[in-house]
Amino acid sequence: MSVSSTVLDRLKDIVGPKGVIDDPADMEPYVTSWRDGLRGRTPLIVRPAATEDVARVLRICNDSRTPVVPQSGNTGLTGAGIPFDGNDEIVLSLNRMTNVRAVDTANDTLTVEAGCILADIQATAAEHGRLFPLSLGAEGSCRIGGNLSTNAGGVQVLRYGNARDLVLGLEVVLPNGEVWDGLRGLRKDNTGYDLKHLFMGAEGTLGVITAAVLKLFPRPKQKQTAFVAVPDVAAAVSLLSLARDECGDAVTCFELIQRIGLEFVLRHVPGTRDPFDDTYPWYVLIELWGQRPGDHLREDLERVLELAMDKGLIGNGVVAASDTQAAALWRLREELSAAQKPEGEGIKHDVSVPISNIAEFIERANAAVTDYMPDIRPLAFGHVGDGNLHYNPAPPVGADIAAFKTHTAAINRMVHDIVHDLNGSISAEHGLGRIRRDEIKRYKSAIELDLMRSLKRAVDPNNIMNPGKMLPD
Amino acid sequence: MSVSSTVLDRLKDIVGPKGVIDDPADMEPYVTSWRDGLRGRTPLIVRPAATEDVARVLRICNDSRTPVVPQSGNTGLTGAGIPFDGNDEIVLSLNRMTNVRAVDTANDTLTVEAGCILADIQATAAEHGRLFPLSLGAEGSCRIGGNLSTNAGGVQVLRYGNARDLVLGLEVVLPNGEVWDGLRGLRKDNTGYDLKHLFMGAEGTLGVITAAVLKLFPRPKQKQTAFVAVPDVAAAVSLLSLARDECGDAVTCFELIQRIGLEFVLRHVPGTRDPFDDTYPWYVLIELWGQRPGDHLREDLERVLELAMDKGLIGNGVVAASDTQAAALWRLREELSAAQKPEGEGIKHDVSVPISNIAEFIERANAAVTDYMPDIRPLAFGHVGDGNLHYNPAPPVGADIAAFKTHTAAINRMVHDIVHDLNGSISAEHGLGRIRRDEIKRYKSAIELDLMRSLKRAVDPNNIMNPGKMLPD
Repeated sequence: MSVSSTVLDRLKDIVGPKGVIDDPADMEPYVTSWRDGLRGRTPLIVRPAATEDVARVLRICNDSRTPVVPQSGNTGLTGAGIPFDGNDEIVLSLNRMTNVRAVDTANDTLTVEAGCILADIQATAAEHGRLFPLSLGAEGSCRIGGNLSTNAGGVQVLRYGNARDLVLGLEVVLPNGEVWDGLRGLRKDNTGYDLKHLFMGAEGTLGVITAAVLKLFPRPKQKQTAFVAVPDVAAAVSLLSLARDECGDAVTCFELIQRIGLEFVLRHVPGTRDPFDDTYPWYVLIELWGQRPGDHLREDLERVLELAMDKGLIGNGVVAASDTQAAALWRLREELSAAQKPEGEGIKHDVSVPISNIAEFIERANAAVTDYMPDIRPLAFGHVGDGNLHYNPAPPVGADIAAFKTHTAAINRMVHDIVHDLNGSISAEHGLGRIRRDEIKRYKSAIELDLMRSLKRAVDPNNIMNPGKMLPD
Repeated sequence: MSVSSTVLDRLKDIVGPKGVIDDPADMEPYVTSWRDGLRGRTPLIVRPAATEDVARVLRICNDSRTPVVPQSGNTGLTGAGIPFDGNDEIVLSLNRMTNVRAVDTANDTLTVEAGCILADIQATAAEHGRLFPLSLGAEGSCRIGGNLSTNAGGVQVLRYGNARDLVLGLEVVLPNGEVWDGLRGLRKDNTGYDLKHLFMGAEGTLGVITAAVLKLFPRPKQKQTAFVAVPDVAAAVSLLSLARDECGDAVTCFELIQRIGLEFVLRHVPGTRDPFDDTYPWYVLIELWGQRPGDHLREDLERVLELAMDKGLIGNGVVAASDTQAAALWRLREELSAAQKPEGEGIKHDVSVPISNIAEFIERANAAVTDYMPDIRPLAFGHVGDGNLHYNPAPPVGADIAAFKTHTAAINRMVHDIVHDLNGSISAEHGLGRIRRDEIKRYKSAIELDLMRSLKRAVDPNNIMNPGKMLPD
């Protein structure tokens, strides 16, 4: 069913010429994903500049039963923000709503519109002597509306929580065009159901987040970074436990890297070098943050590493002596995504398990995929402190990539079955969107899916909000 | 409409003789509140010992349209857990479900049943070298199911968040008797709507929380406690900002106390003494927690106090030299609730405002209540770091308490109108229950109330779960 020209004209009227994109070439970046080759079609992209206009758009779409795909930075990894191929969905881009509505340093809050770029929010917080701790690879182009709609994670979740934990209030346009003003800057408010948590992580299926009150934190005064070699994954998990016993929540980042991942980086990213002369099967990047000038962070980190050495948990280690050295160590982690490309993109999984099951997950997943395809190159890395691994087995050396990709469904199945068996999640921080929506039926109970569907019907009875994403039929 | 004897008999069969209370004298502690004199009637209290039995109870109640009031420790302050007077509601007590189902120190989680007493959970965490940071006055008798259903707060929210922030997973019996098994111990899971946040803070109106996976934290290795005198509330707020700038999240507790509150404590609580020779209008109890052995916490705290002294933010201060001294300082805060009783219970408010509005709130509320009743004795104390104040003006000296209490509605109205005007909440950590349910209509938008009602209908279409609590008609 195509969208009537009457509806399209009314929508164009609302947002005006600056808010309309209907030329196919200009539409391209809005209907394609930057990774994984997802794409779709839409007759119209509207870019409202204010909440009232979002409300008017949704009212028209609700009345005319026109499906709406909300999108902010379009950096998602599951296709949640991209229309399907039917050319019958409107794309509602928030990328013109970029106002910082309020800065309240006494309350440690920042009120921003959904289209603000994450890095700009971090910078605004910093200008006011505060930290906004959400941090992830796409921070230079992702926008906060999308971060909240997918409950983004990143590298500082261990210490600061996921995106949803950093929000005190929301403004949401409901499917019928009503505006829920929940922009409260309160740390305690117990006056009914917590609606903000319903909209966060809902991938645009319940309404459009137009603004948020974000929590700010004290800025760290010191950071200490170490890169250590560990004999196996169990040792990495024990090291995390030891570090938290000794240093508490100063342990802010704790990233696991498999040798093959480091090799990909060393091979393909100019200017990187192995911190050690010998090779080791696994590495951990660990970072402590201190918030007081008198902190003896470096001594604390060195003590942890000595204790770990005594217990045989680490085989080698280096503590960054300068910010430059720390940045070089971080590059070994941050370039992991890019470094996979020249080796032939792997089959990607964004999973989580209880931290106590991480070692078993990797062992069983590696056994399963190599049993299925002996030359496949298992590759795991990620956020041990959150139980979150990116498990991306790479194709055999020299393999035909198209042929390799035909195994995607089979490999997804075996990896996700193991995750499920270990009480894990098949999507830790990327959401379900288009690509995991059908798979989730296998792993979520009928009771939970029914409950989700009941909520969806209650809030969006005409099913106009991002239909066909996240929630399986 | 009374409950049929057939239904009562079927319910008794499920829980067996040990699970039944139907003698009026034995019922008393389940149908009365420990404060504020709320009470109700019920034909039957059932105390299931297992989730399956809770499910069977709800199935019968749903089929027979029998209202159910879930209750755990019955320490609530709004009557949410107490039946109304109609004798037509079943009370479902969780106080026999006290198993610790799992301890996972590598995952830093504890899986507990809803009837576990909070202090027991804290002790279990400590036995395993961990901290469960939820801490509040009633911790010796409140139970975790109620803590989660009201999203309890307490004295460490500044650092660790509210009850809902300490939960990774839930098991909930839905109104139709189905069991939602959301007992996941995952720090990252983005596979659909976040159902756990819907049930937490819902005051038993959407289902019965039967178990939870709780997050554990590293235990603090050091604590430093100071009691300081401040000239006014604005100075207390500035001191908080300064302390967080200097010491970051080591600032774990930050409690404001008004002089009159301290006087009540000194007058009525044996063994307490004023830390200072002079009197001051306001005080702050501040506590830093350190998690590393090398922490120089005391020096850091002393530096903050010196800086604050230089800026004129504090008039006097004492840092506890021992645990005994710290405990004596804490008593001045903890006995505030009890010390109000002999002065004639005040009219109590549990409000929050953005931290930046705290000073203005107290100024305006004091002006309003003393304008209304010149001899009333304004009394404020609470958790500045959360913007949460207990604002409990005490009756004039020698006033007739019954006559004073006739002004409750009028005083609630003026205090809550000011809270609302300052973008605050009329219930920060106690919930709405019976006593705030009608008031909230004045302050919450029709859009928000309608959304709440839609969710309630979606999850509990027969309205059997704690009807008439929290959600206004």
